[in-house]
Amino acid sequence: MSEFLHAIQSPADLRQIPRSDLPTVANELRACVLDNVSKTGGHLSSNLGTVELTLALHYVFNTPEDRIVWDVGHQTYPHKILTGRRERMPTLRQLNGLSGFPRRDESEYDTFGVGHSSTSISAALGMALAARQKGESRHSIAVIGDGAMTAGMAFEALNNAGVEECKLLVILNDNDMSISPPVGALNRYLAQLMSGKFYSAAKNVGKNVLKNAPPLFELAKRLEEHAKGMVVPATLFEKFGFNYIGPIDGHDLESLIPTLENIKHLDGPQFLHVVTKKGQGYKLAEADPVAYHGPGKFDPAVGLVPSTTPAKTTFTQVFGQWLCDMAQQDQRLVGITPAMREGSGMVEFHRRFPDRYYDAGIAEQHAVTFAAGMACEGLKPVVAIYSTFLQRAYDQLIHDVALQNLPVVFAIDRAGLVGADGATHAGAYDIAFIRCIPNMSLACPADERECRQLLSTAYAQNHPVAVRYPRGAGVGAVPDADLNPLPLGKAEIRRQGQGIAILAFGSLLAPALKAAEALNATVVNMRWVKPLDTELLAQVAQDHPQLVTLEEGSIMGGAGSAVTEALQQLGLVRPVLQLGLPDVFIEHGDHAQLLAAQGLDAAGIEASIRQRFAL
Amino acid sequence: MSEFLHAIQSPADLRQIPRSDLPTVANELRACVLDNVSKTGGHLSSNLGTVELTLALHYVFNTPEDRIVWDVGHQTYPHKILTGRRERMPTLRQLNGLSGFPRRDESEYDTFGVGHSSTSISAALGMALAARQKGESRHSIAVIGDGAMTAGMAFEALNNAGVEECKLLVILNDNDMSISPPVGALNRYLAQLMSGKFYSAAKNVGKNVLKNAPPLFELAKRLEEHAKGMVVPATLFEKFGFNYIGPIDGHDLESLIPTLENIKHLDGPQFLHVVTKKGQGYKLAEADPVAYHGPGKFDPAVGLVPSTTPAKTTFTQVFGQWLCDMAQQDQRLVGITPAMREGSGMVEFHRRFPDRYYDAGIAEQHAVTFAAGMACEGLKPVVAIYSTFLQRAYDQLIHDVALQNLPVVFAIDRAGLVGADGATHAGAYDIAFIRCIPNMSLACPADERECRQLLSTAYAQNHPVAVRYPRGAGVGAVPDADLNPLPLGKAEIRRQGQGIAILAFGSLLAPALKAAEALNATVVNMRWVKPLDTELLAQVAQDHPQLVTLEEGSIMGGAGSAVTEALQQLGLVRPVLQLGLPDVFIEHGDHAQLLAAQGLDAAGIEASIRQRFAL
Repeated sequence: MSEFLHAIQSPADLRQIPRSDLPTVANELRACVLDNVSKTGGHLSSNLGTVELTLALHYVFNTPEDRIVWDVGHQTYPHKILTGRRERMPTLRQLNGLSGFPRRDESEYDTFGVGHSSTSISAALGMALAARQKGESRHSIAVIGDGAMTAGMAFEALNNAGVEECKLLVILNDNDMSISPPVGALNRYLAQLMSGKFYSAAKNVGKNVLKNAPPLFELAKRLEEHAKGMVVPATLFEKFGFNYIGPIDGHDLESLIPTLENIKHLDGPQFLHVVTKKGQGYKLAEADPVAYHGPGKFDPAVGLVPSTTPAKTTFTQVFGQWLCDMAQQDQRLVGITPAMREGSGMVEFHRRFPDRYYDAGIAEQHAVTFAAGMACEGLKPVVAIYSTFLQRAYDQLIHDVALQNLPVVFAIDRAGLVGADGATHAGAYDIAFIRCIPNMSLACPADERECRQLLSTAYAQNHPVAVRYPRGAGVGAVPDADLNPLPLGKAEIRRQGQGIAILAFGSLLAPALKAAEALNATVVNMRWVKPLDTELLAQVAQDHPQLVTLEEGSIMGGAGSAVTEALQQLGLVRPVLQLGLPDVFIEHGDHAQLLAAQGLDAAGIEASIRQRFAL
Repeated sequence: MSEFLHAIQSPADLRQIPRSDLPTVANELRACVLDNVSKTGGHLSSNLGTVELTLALHYVFNTPEDRIVWDVGHQTYPHKILTGRRERMPTLRQLNGLSGFPRRDESEYDTFGVGHSSTSISAALGMALAARQKGESRHSIAVIGDGAMTAGMAFEALNNAGVEECKLLVILNDNDMSISPPVGALNRYLAQLMSGKFYSAAKNVGKNVLKNAPPLFELAKRLEEHAKGMVVPATLFEKFGFNYIGPIDGHDLESLIPTLENIKHLDGPQFLHVVTKKGQGYKLAEADPVAYHGPGKFDPAVGLVPSTTPAKTTFTQVFGQWLCDMAQQDQRLVGITPAMREGSGMVEFHRRFPDRYYDAGIAEQHAVTFAAGMACEGLKPVVAIYSTFLQRAYDQLIHDVALQNLPVVFAIDRAGLVGADGATHAGAYDIAFIRCIPNMSLACPADERECRQLLSTAYAQNHPVAVRYPRGAGVGAVPDADLNPLPLGKAEIRRQGQGIAILAFGSLLAPALKAAEALNATVVNMRWVKPLDTELLAQVAQDHPQLVTLEEGSIMGGAGSAVTEALQQLGLVRPVLQLGLPDVFIEHGDHAQLLAAQGLDAAGIEASIRQRFAL
């Protein structure tokens, strides 16, 4: 089945294979991706869509000397397979296994670590200009999807790259999809470029003109440029100073390879528009690329089947239900997502309230300031965003929302560790980076029921409030049907013990309660990082000589430090054991396994407390 | 001199004035701006450039019912004068006086608070879609400069706006300048649009076609649209779905007013390209808009004159000198700025090392990831950035630099309070938001000499390091000529006292030393927030029963909390008084005055310590 693939230990081996055999290699590569992902889970549609492009790039360019920077990186399984990691594919996204994204310390072929969208052009431009400065002649290539092009950062990079003389190639991998369907004017524009005659004609250019020798192509190009500006509307990318080539069929190696070979000889920044299909070659994924974006394990012959055991309700689902219920009750509510309709649980809200649903695209900065603008007009925006992606809108959170004290609710999903996606996607810093902002409040529900209550509380305020909750399900506390809020900034004692008090922030309340049984410790469900319940804190500190804080977030600057700050202000000097995430980036793996490794399961919490307080 | 202006208490008054008298109003307005700024200091060039545009907007649109969102906001003095704040102009940028930027709580005409660039389209789109949802027919207008258009956020907003049916008008105020000259492909493209025939022809369109009644204009427009796509290359902004009009002369009220009146009646997102000149009407500012961007007080008849008393060397200048010296010594050094060549002290570096100087435009996200890309190739990037603008690149700092542990130096200027620019520009949060990031180091030099030493230390590391220093000058410590580093993460005792130890981070060391004299306290110059000198800390905590931390940054999550975290980890339970910036946004005013108001001068520090420890 994989006669060629077994012999490819590196792209150098690939480059020995006759071009006529490459379609067979592509078939093997596609089968290898499908086989592996069906066993490990992971990204599927995006990887099936980049098989030929990956092959062509490594075939034409002299990797790793030439640099390929993959945007987002969830399309790099074919790249990993071709660059000596085929045998490790069964370890994908597991503890100590291959990362689901490129990582510089995993391979010299992974030139730049990614995970978040739209960084590739900036990074590749940096590499290209560094090469220029050092007098090296290598190529730097950014491969970026059309979804990722909606992020402003990509335009910042285009704006800078277009005026530089360097060996930069930007490849737009246009599959008309981000994770959700793409939005906005750019998407409409790309559709125009691809439609009708233009695309067909360009396909022929790819097949016929480009496979001639460079000098002829150069001539054709110059003629074309001469003609341009007179009759042919220049593309958007040409306005940014790039030489635009395409669109060409990204699954046709006979277009891809000659085109790339010719581009190698062109000077200045080049822009190649490649059209691919997410899920290409696997009918089920082609038909539903969203469902097959990041599936769990499945039988490729059967496809995804609904689980027979009812799944536990996730925090994401609790949010989605709350959003619909609150929207039903309050006309002012609008829901905003930066391209994460599915991941943030907003599919049903979009269906039921299409006029109050806004997908900003992968554009967190815009999404947050857009929400601020709406709040100025008396609407009640709810921005659903992953913790790690809110980092993209940090200035807008401070400058546009908090400084103006506007009532925007931030529903922060994936707070804490996220499991298989690893360090790039972990939501470890939001407590630290939010709580220092004046006017902000920040809640961390301990369970699903409280998540709904605290979302209602956040919504009832007249200032900005963030509610952070983890990926997946919690203890299974069933939310109430009503939309009653809890009091702002009030904690509750969940277990009365002696000597030691554990102050738990968020979903680690559950292991805290378990550890407390063994220690006969008091447990406080803190609920709010800000405003902190200093009244209850003072009382607990009076009654307990030893305190422990617990959070699924960085210890540095986190909720525990909010507690110690408050205690110092109260003049209460107590030993406080601060438990949470340490000062390192934590890699991918099973969520529970990772928490346990950090001593944040019940046993670990108990052990840390015993050690610190010599019990 | 100002017969009209005195009678204008609001735009409603302005709208009573015959159109033929508007040029006189413009003259009065320009004189009023010049007169005030020459007395108070503040932004000049940008405000002289928007006199006619401001007049025309308030004349044609029904403000405040129609919303004007000014991008950045340093061009809003004419707007403030026309909206009832003329008499308060002498208080501009002073404590309890008018803000230099629009503020929602200052006037109902200030629809959105700004200060940072490129937020206006997002905010105005939010307002426009809110109006649509509420069935209100008001207009929302974003006025954005060509410099601000280089930020990706503006493109994110265009991408979203272009597909919406709403009453949104984006006005590009194209003056071919940000604060520094603008960079990149977009700038070159705008220059093309303005050059030669196209602009001249368009000027005539503005004067002749547009002043006809709307129906005729509509017809002309439809004809034009029909022609477009066949022979006329569509503009970049049309590709984003906008109806593009322009460029027109932004100082010609006879172009501006009829054009705006016609645009009012068009459906869908409109894009008006207006060409203005920074400093218009004041020859000295026209000739050198950079120097007159934000002057201090001066005599308008004479212009800026070099000060006779030699100015104290600023931290910015210390950085600029260090950058040149280190670049001279190390070929690998590259200097990167997001459009702040002057403000960051890089003019001389640019002059001497043009091939190693990169101005990314107002594009902090790109600038940081671009630096990461360069670091991957063995260069040593130094990113000079204001604390408040680093907020724009927070995700890139975490995801692209720190996670990959790349040796990028961040020279963070304007850390702490910034004086007259106020809350939008204060660098209050960088300690909190940086120190929670793994792999990062963070230094705060106490004086100018140490600033140079710590920059050298940062540069010598093989991981990311930030050095934060305040606006303006410090105590006047003369930097050494050499480039010798200090040890990483080592503090020093600067004064040995008894009982109380003040742990000072950064330039507040000076008032700490003064306060310590009165208290006979020990003073430690901490130098590093991260890594913290826990060894010296432990020793000091052993020797002193009472500790004080001091920083010009938010107390919440700041350096003081780094100290309490470390003490708790060391098992040293001590009372710690954490002094720094409180949990509120601090408004504009004189820097020393603001610090004193927060109790961060020597007297305030002494008083707080006496109170806390009942001395």
